[in-house]
Amino acid sequence: MKEKETEIPPEHPRAESLLIRERLIKHYKSGIVAEAGLFAHGRGEAFDYLLGEKTTKNALKAIEAAATALLTAKHPVISVNGNAAALAARDIVKLAELTGAKIEVNLFYRSAEREIAIKKLLEEAGAKQVLGVGEAASARITEVGSERRRVDPAGILVADVVLVPLEDGDRTEALVEMGKKVIAIDLNPLSRTAQFATITIVDNIVRAMPTLIEVAEKLRKEDRSKLKTILANFGNKRNLSEAVNLINQRLSELRERGTYISISLKGEK
Amino acid sequence: MKEKETEIPPEHPRAESLLIRERLIKHYKSGIVAEAGLFAHGRGEAFDYLLGEKTTKNALKAIEAAATALLTAKHPVISVNGNAAALAARDIVKLAELTGAKIEVNLFYRSAEREIAIKKLLEEAGAKQVLGVGEAASARITEVGSERRRVDPAGILVADVVLVPLEDGDRTEALVEMGKKVIAIDLNPLSRTAQFATITIVDNIVRAMPTLIEVAEKLRKEDRSKLKTILANFGNKRNLSEAVNLINQRLSELRERGTYISISLKGEK
Repeated sequence: MKEKETEIPPEHPRAESLLIRERLIKHYKSGIVAEAGLFAHGRGEAFDYLLGEKTTKNALKAIEAAATALLTAKHPVISVNGNAAALAARDIVKLAELTGAKIEVNLFYRSAEREIAIKKLLEEAGAKQVLGVGEAASARITEVGSERRRVDPAGILVADVVLVPLEDGDRTEALVEMGKKVIAIDLNPLSRTAQFATITIVDNIVRAMPTLIEVAEKLRKEDRSKLKTILANFGNKRNLSEAVNLINQRLSELRERGTYISISLKGEK
Repeated sequence: MKEKETEIPPEHPRAESLLIRERLIKHYKSGIVAEAGLFAHGRGEAFDYLLGEKTTKNALKAIEAAATALLTAKHPVISVNGNAAALAARDIVKLAELTGAKIEVNLFYRSAEREIAIKKLLEEAGAKQVLGVGEAASARITEVGSERRRVDPAGILVADVVLVPLEDGDRTEALVEMGKKVIAIDLNPLSRTAQFATITIVDNIVRAMPTLIEVAEKLRKEDRSKLKTILANFGNKRNLSEAVNLINQRLSELRERGTYISISLKGEK
């Protein structure tokens, strides 16, 4: 009568998805992931299924624009919350090294314990400097709905490009209003985050981050004019509209085939 | 620096959704809801947004068919898992009384502690008898993938109609193969559960259950021939196809309006 939620056979059709869940639960218990982060991940799963659980060409276009924006930024910053740290700590560190970006911990509801736990996880993943923790976040930005949030004066406050994987809409809007280019990774192309961001990568963070690193490695060798062209040719609204179309097409195809999305996992819901 | 996840202002645009999350977290901590149940709820949220967070006419048709099936059943049973108990214990008890259905606890990964906790919650909600707990679940059903699951010989084993709110696909398939009519409540019209069930209510359990009670209260006064007509006129595949169309339409409308779905909550993701 023991639960066996940690023994996932590798041949299980949803093994990867279940392993990701395990990682989130582990980091929920260690104080890195917030409760809301577990629900948010479930929402993301639904959209990921609707997108076919792959990095689409549409996402790849956004990834190219994102890599370019990071490579050409003066002060790029990667903003990290609990889920991002739990799912992509190593890739965050790699991408920061590759693009010269700073790493800043940035939570909606700040908690000293969570900030420190996330910082530690990032340091274990190789980060040399982690901004935004505790007293370091001494600057304030005014957000929509008169919420005030703290940021690090050496990080997000002076950044021109901010990568916000798995961010909330208010924060994204606030950063854009401060004149920053915001790159979001969000599986829901209709979310406020997705719609407000300058460049939205509609993809799962666990696929988007390694791809972003790969693309940045290629593009860093290109000359500036080529990079400028990539950015100039990218339209976020158009790209998001395409992403919605992809979901619609997939829904229609699945309906017509009479097939189902195997979204239910072997486990109690 | 304290987290305030329990203080939800009633004017918050997502207050209801946040209160439901709180209930799940509370019951996760009390051992009723499984970890997988938190992710599953997040997935449900995504589909609920895509459906407009309301009981559609499409769902209402399925609810009418479901009420009829329960009212005309010889041995109706309501199968209850952690999320269903956490979100709808009182309505489960009410519906059981109204339709003469038995209540059976039925978990994917059985856990004595969880079964007992769910039984207790149902009893607090007024249930006089709760089947399927511990040794009472002495019968086995063979499931797809050669998994074997226990059921109560006084409940699901002999049931002709089983309501399985928030069930997994394998279980639904197994019950249908045993010749039972399965009524599912599932927000994803393309899930295996939704596709295998005899009658699928594509709606949020917190709206579907009270509506199901209301409809059953009306229909119990109707004569048998009217009830037979309702069931005869209902086609699950057609209804599910319509539900997918509704999502498609909403996605297209939102895209065209250039508006977004406010899916991100005020909280860290």
